[in-house]
Amino acid sequence: IAKEVAKLLEMKAQLGGDEGKHKFVLKTPKGTRDYSPKQMAIRERVFDAIITCFKRHGAEVIDTPVFELKETLTGKYGEDSKLIYDLKDQGGELLSLRYDLTVPFARYLAMNKITNIKRYHIAKVYRRDNPAMTRGRYREFYQCDFDIAGQFDPMIPDAECLKIVHEILSDLQLGDFLVKVNDRRILDGMFAVCGVPDSKFRMICSSVDKLDKMPWEEVRSEMVGEKGLSPEAADRIGEYVQLHGGLDLIERLLQDPKLSQNKLAKEGLGDMKLLLEYLSLFGITGKISFDLSLARGLDYYTGVIFEAVLLQQNDHVEEPISVGSVAGGGRYDGLVGMFDPKGRKVPCVGVSIGIERIFSILEQRVEASAEKIRTTETQVLVASAQKKLLEERLKLVAELWDAGIKAEVLYKKNPKLLNQLQYCEDTGIPLVAIVGEQELKDGVIKLRVVATREEVNVRRESLVEEIRLRTSR
Amino acid sequence: IAKEVAKLLEMKAQLGGDEGKHKFVLKTPKGTRDYSPKQMAIRERVFDAIITCFKRHGAEVIDTPVFELKETLTGKYGEDSKLIYDLKDQGGELLSLRYDLTVPFARYLAMNKITNIKRYHIAKVYRRDNPAMTRGRYREFYQCDFDIAGQFDPMIPDAECLKIVHEILSDLQLGDFLVKVNDRRILDGMFAVCGVPDSKFRMICSSVDKLDKMPWEEVRSEMVGEKGLSPEAADRIGEYVQLHGGLDLIERLLQDPKLSQNKLAKEGLGDMKLLLEYLSLFGITGKISFDLSLARGLDYYTGVIFEAVLLQQNDHVEEPISVGSVAGGGRYDGLVGMFDPKGRKVPCVGVSIGIERIFSILEQRVEASAEKIRTTETQVLVASAQKKLLEERLKLVAELWDAGIKAEVLYKKNPKLLNQLQYCEDTGIPLVAIVGEQELKDGVIKLRVVATREEVNVRRESLVEEIRLRTSR
Repeated sequence: IAKEVAKLLEMKAQLGGDEGKHKFVLKTPKGTRDYSPKQMAIRERVFDAIITCFKRHGAEVIDTPVFELKETLTGKYGEDSKLIYDLKDQGGELLSLRYDLTVPFARYLAMNKITNIKRYHIAKVYRRDNPAMTRGRYREFYQCDFDIAGQFDPMIPDAECLKIVHEILSDLQLGDFLVKVNDRRILDGMFAVCGVPDSKFRMICSSVDKLDKMPWEEVRSEMVGEKGLSPEAADRIGEYVQLHGGLDLIERLLQDPKLSQNKLAKEGLGDMKLLLEYLSLFGITGKISFDLSLARGLDYYTGVIFEAVLLQQNDHVEEPISVGSVAGGGRYDGLVGMFDPKGRKVPCVGVSIGIERIFSILEQRVEASAEKIRTTETQVLVASAQKKLLEERLKLVAELWDAGIKAEVLYKKNPKLLNQLQYCEDTGIPLVAIVGEQELKDGVIKLRVVATREEVNVRRESLVEEIRLRTSR
Repeated sequence: IAKEVAKLLEMKAQLGGDEGKHKFVLKTPKGTRDYSPKQMAIRERVFDAIITCFKRHGAEVIDTPVFELKETLTGKYGEDSKLIYDLKDQGGELLSLRYDLTVPFARYLAMNKITNIKRYHIAKVYRRDNPAMTRGRYREFYQCDFDIAGQFDPMIPDAECLKIVHEILSDLQLGDFLVKVNDRRILDGMFAVCGVPDSKFRMICSSVDKLDKMPWEEVRSEMVGEKGLSPEAADRIGEYVQLHGGLDLIERLLQDPKLSQNKLAKEGLGDMKLLLEYLSLFGITGKISFDLSLARGLDYYTGVIFEAVLLQQNDHVEEPISVGSVAGGGRYDGLVGMFDPKGRKVPCVGVSIGIERIFSILEQRVEASAEKIRTTETQVLVASAQKKLLEERLKLVAELWDAGIKAEVLYKKNPKLLNQLQYCEDTGIPLVAIVGEQELKDGVIKLRVVATREEVNVRRESLVEEIRLRTSR
């Protein structure tokens, strides 16, 4: 026995030893990433374009916590609910990370009894999805949401959301794009006239939503096989979902013997007509396509839905092909009511810009080009040519900081001038303020322009002004 | 039996009915909050001041995921580790929400083999602490971190961190403040000469850290009672931690018969002297106090530590009293090495601005004043005085958006002019562009200045220019 115990103790010691080594896996969690300074510079350009647009349309901004009570998110996302991140029960409330910004927005409206607001919200959301990071699909990603809540005349806010998508995608110069538009009421009417039982509407809608990733044959077999739809109903749906067009298609469907008998579909088609009229006033119908195959996965939509895809010309086929969705949204008139104790509804419509894919595209473009992106804004490096001038450099850099000049100093007691100039080259700092024994005696600072190597002596009291002048372009 | 079954079924039905009611608790999770548009406007002012300062000092910006592998956070926070939020194990990696931005920063440096960077990072962190929201203590809160990593000459980056704290607190005009400075090496040396066993250094350090919230008597009894320190050692510590001052105190301690014999303490005191010399060059020693009671809770500090507190003049006592910490930081030379497979060290020093308390103060100040904060930037409302002009309003507002003007339109077919003017009053929109039958015929738009009620007809092609001119101030 003593022998056995010794053996076990030895084994334990070995295990303990291994533990002690702290074998770290040095990585970010699956589906997430860090942003380097260069990536941040690109990201901020994108954010800037988006926020500028949201503000141009008069939006306020709000923020909500990254997690919500678990029950706040329950029953809002249909099949996608399985992708929600839950927090561990460490005592207290049960919490989940937000899955989008829309449900927290609805919770915010109900909680604060707000019936009227136009707001944007830019923040990270979380989905336990299969990441495809090269194509910009992450588990932690930004959404940039703009929503209009309130009881208004039909399709005016809806049209503004589409205008916003158009403005942002044009501003960012991502190439050609198309905004597909449909309406949940048209879809539901279509399902009804095709013979889908009411109880299967949402389920079949989820299947239709997969049409952008799967061919019709596969979607059909999911409908019939997994979801128990009759083959005849599926085939009827198959005919409708091929259709896309503009006002002409709406007129045709309004004449459709079956669809025109369905109240929901008729309402949806009437509003779609109005929407296209408003979009024509906005001058953007060229990039809008009314598309019966557009379904959107989420449960909460009740009216107009839309999705913007980037297009790429392909040598082998005539029509440009979609290279992925970059924005989506729609009307959700019932969501706020789900949170209100008395079920009071607040009609809402909104759009969400998915910046990850946009960011991927711009990042690749920068990589491919020779463009050098500065990651700091420093205007001047305070340097010295001789030794023992650390104190003078510190005094001068503090003077510049206090005057609001963006300035740096190398953290060495006696840095070589060459190293200081090299630092400017590497980081794009345009000016160097050089302190030297003689200059200090003369009350001047030598200002050097990095690009031209030109040097001028500037009186110390004029230095701030001179730096401002030279970096104001 | 049949009766019993019926009874049970009835009970079940009742329970089911209750479930169906969805009794939502309409709230944000404990210790968290939403930000309203007005709060966001104040928050953005604070961020703006902080980011401007960080950029003035030449910092780049990075971002990291909101959660990390659980093991990344393990063993970094000492007693505070119990406050980390874990995610539920839903298969895959074990994850935790970040507790601060410093450990993710160190992980980022090690992972990317970066040995030299000056970066800022502004993001939310998470602590399962007891919230005290009126005093700005939350479970989800922002940190604004600035850190300098790299092998440099002593105390130059450390001094810049303190300069940054000084600049930000001055810029934000929060009233009087004091930055307490100490050094972990001085503390450890002090513990050694007081007779604290090596194994209890961190534990006793945690107790000293509570001195800003608890009187010495309580801290002493924690040391002796809970932590098993000898009463004599505690009393010796008690004498040291009363001391605070400037260069004079450093000189005195360098003469202290016990402390001056301790290698660590001597090193720390020497560097503290150098730090104060640099801060004097920066002209900020007036608000700096070398304070032996400052300990900071976190395990990872290895050198200089500091904490900024706001001061308030109190009628009853002579000296101004601290109303809470708003920034803190220090040197952590070992943290990156904990992540590096070969233990390679990257010396770091950094500062974290705690904006929640700052934000509380500014929010109260705005509430108390008559200042009206605009939450949008809209320059002009496109309005109409007559009915049936929706289409003309939509056309005009799209023209303005496309020209980069911040414009809104009410989402009503026929809004009353009074309601449109009231909307401008309520939201602070300075201009109204009024379309009318006659004006359309004449090719002009009536531009109204909300504040003065002045109205002028502007030719449609000059409208954009005129709006820019009138809103450029």
